[in-house]
Amino acid sequence: MRILIKNIFLGKEKKDIFILGNKIRKIGKNLNLKADEKIDAKGEKAALPGLINSHTHSAMILFRGIAEDLPLEKWLKEKIWPLEQKLTEDDVYWGTKLALIEMIKMGITSFNEMYWFETAQIEAAREMGMRAKIGLVLLDFLPTGQKKHIEEILSKYSRFLKKDSLISFSIAPHAIYTVSRENLIWAKKIAKKHNLILHMHLSETEKEVKECKKKYKLRPVEYLEKIGFLDKNCIFAHSIWLSEKEIQILKKRNCNLVYNPCSNAKLCSGIFPWKKIKKEKIRVSLGTDGPASNNSLDLFSEMKFGALLQKISFGDPTIISAKEVFQMATKNAAKALKINGGEIKEGKLADIILIDLNKIHLFPHHDLISNLVYSAGGNCVSDVICDGKILMRDGKIKEEEKIKREAKKRIKLI
Amino acid sequence: MRILIKNIFLGKEKKDIFILGNKIRKIGKNLNLKADEKIDAKGEKAALPGLINSHTHSAMILFRGIAEDLPLEKWLKEKIWPLEQKLTEDDVYWGTKLALIEMIKMGITSFNEMYWFETAQIEAAREMGMRAKIGLVLLDFLPTGQKKHIEEILSKYSRFLKKDSLISFSIAPHAIYTVSRENLIWAKKIAKKHNLILHMHLSETEKEVKECKKKYKLRPVEYLEKIGFLDKNCIFAHSIWLSEKEIQILKKRNCNLVYNPCSNAKLCSGIFPWKKIKKEKIRVSLGTDGPASNNSLDLFSEMKFGALLQKISFGDPTIISAKEVFQMATKNAAKALKINGGEIKEGKLADIILIDLNKIHLFPHHDLISNLVYSAGGNCVSDVICDGKILMRDGKIKEEEKIKREAKKRIKLI
Repeated sequence: MRILIKNIFLGKEKKDIFILGNKIRKIGKNLNLKADEKIDAKGEKAALPGLINSHTHSAMILFRGIAEDLPLEKWLKEKIWPLEQKLTEDDVYWGTKLALIEMIKMGITSFNEMYWFETAQIEAAREMGMRAKIGLVLLDFLPTGQKKHIEEILSKYSRFLKKDSLISFSIAPHAIYTVSRENLIWAKKIAKKHNLILHMHLSETEKEVKECKKKYKLRPVEYLEKIGFLDKNCIFAHSIWLSEKEIQILKKRNCNLVYNPCSNAKLCSGIFPWKKIKKEKIRVSLGTDGPASNNSLDLFSEMKFGALLQKISFGDPTIISAKEVFQMATKNAAKALKINGGEIKEGKLADIILIDLNKIHLFPHHDLISNLVYSAGGNCVSDVICDGKILMRDGKIKEEEKIKREAKKRIKLI
Repeated sequence: MRILIKNIFLGKEKKDIFILGNKIRKIGKNLNLKADEKIDAKGEKAALPGLINSHTHSAMILFRGIAEDLPLEKWLKEKIWPLEQKLTEDDVYWGTKLALIEMIKMGITSFNEMYWFETAQIEAAREMGMRAKIGLVLLDFLPTGQKKHIEEILSKYSRFLKKDSLISFSIAPHAIYTVSRENLIWAKKIAKKHNLILHMHLSETEKEVKECKKKYKLRPVEYLEKIGFLDKNCIFAHSIWLSEKEIQILKKRNCNLVYNPCSNAKLCSGIFPWKKIKKEKIRVSLGTDGPASNNSLDLFSEMKFGALLQKISFGDPTIISAKEVFQMATKNAAKALKINGGEIKEGKLADIILIDLNKIHLFPHHDLISNLVYSAGGNCVSDVICDGKILMRDGKIKEEEKIKREAKKRIKLI
């Protein structure tokens, strides 16, 4: 498939973008190349790299709005966990599809997932055409045979282990307090064997740190360092409660962190220590977390809240800029998740979103990134291309109504 | 004009709403009344009271995105003030219209304004059909004759002083550090004479409090109490740096406060002391502040940020709920601004917005208010009625494109 996008703003200049297969082949002025699909932006749209949601639990969209304004323990134990007990593979399939509709609408082309029923997620992501890292979850309290299950999936879907595959995997031990030392070491081994990333919750709450210290006489990152878990393949969601020493370890081991500002604030987990992390130049990407604890899948509004929260916390409006949070959701995330994207450049994967510059929130046009972060949000996305295929055209996604209908039925069962 | 809205969700039930003139005349099931305009929501929309933006500087939309991620002093003195020097009445007219387009799209039907060139604002608000409190601004450093100018406006537009007038006024002394004691007392007198509200910035920064203490040996609220300024007609924007004693005075005098979370965070002014204010049951409404320091005019996203910021600040997810922030932007604001609205009830002003329940952000439909606050934002508003007139129908506003074109021209001149 060849797509030619004409007269599109790339920064301050109008250019053309030519997509061949799943890559950006050429960027220039007045490209006259044969294409199967032509999009003339007429200078009324801008192109940006597709956003990357670095930590989410998509199917939790089924629980959105069910349990609000509650403390974390109550939220989890009294509301979410009992509901999750009842979830079927079919629920997760339709729930994931519903969440992916929302992500595509908000300009997200890739997501780093962690939830149950992985094969349902694989089907959902493939059918929606999105780039996904499906987390193969490890949790001690799940039925035995989980390791075997993970190995079976890796063997069944071995074609996904190739470079630039639209769907690929992470090994996803849930957290240090739910996965044994033995299983963490196994996770690390299997990730190394298949060159996969390790996706895990880390130091989300102060309680987690306290319990870890009590059990191991070490803080969580010190514990992970001791068991040899840490390297550049690690991507840690939340990572709020970090000591200076832990930050130094994470830096030394080249680990990647995910900032989840809305969820962290809504559940009162804590504030991500951006100031120290920035100083040490540790790579940070951005995630929405699951839609039951955010409750949005709009990474642009996550950027706004993420920036504002750091500014007010440190009393310094210069501590983080619109451009910095935007990079968290694009370039940084691409590096952390080993996606050859996050930028619009020749040779990169064709994961591109178009922004409708005529949307009121983008007026005046002084600064597009600032407008998108602080004023607009994902509703200004008009078209979404992922892996060289058009997923959304002028706000329309194939099967949206059907997916809403089917998801609604599953919601009634909960 | 008679409008009949059929099959619309009001809470959990589908009802009909009949509007006669500028009031809600009847709410019930299967109303068969003659109407000039019929809107059949087919059970796919919900009705909510029009939102009220309790503190803004609309025409500052012209500066949106121009000066980002800067400290307050630098932002004001190096960027905003020099630009404001160049503003003409014509700029303010088109800038206000542009901002009102955005407000209407976000479901705002009323706004409490404070800016220069009041007659341009009056024209803009009238033409857009919005309910406005136009602030008649007092600032010592403006050319002399300001008091005379205010009296002239009040005399010229005396018809606006009637109850339930779509356009009305506030007396708006900018702040205690820019308006002399003598002028504050005059403002109070003139507000009392015409039964107008007093709209002012108060204790936005710690610096303001320090300087006040140095000058008067009193904190700002103590100073205002001493000069007899405070009563139930006062509405104070920001009101961040308040002592226990000041909170007690504000309570005793029945003053109204405006919470401006995004602007306060972006400029690092401070965090509104909601916990203490809530305890004392002081009325709080919600404002976006000007679109150059937010930068959004979406009160729904203001609700989200406002709730999340309080939760994380106090480490208590139960401290504020979606419903509470929603009331700040509706019922509370209506009371503070003396608008017979903020609720959908028979006899109230017909300021109503319709929500498109088919928008992805509102799925599943467990809790509409929670979904609007935490997930959706203003982009789910499909229709807007203000004062019994339709301002937006299915997302379309008359003259939107013309206003964008004209505003663009003014932006180029800046």
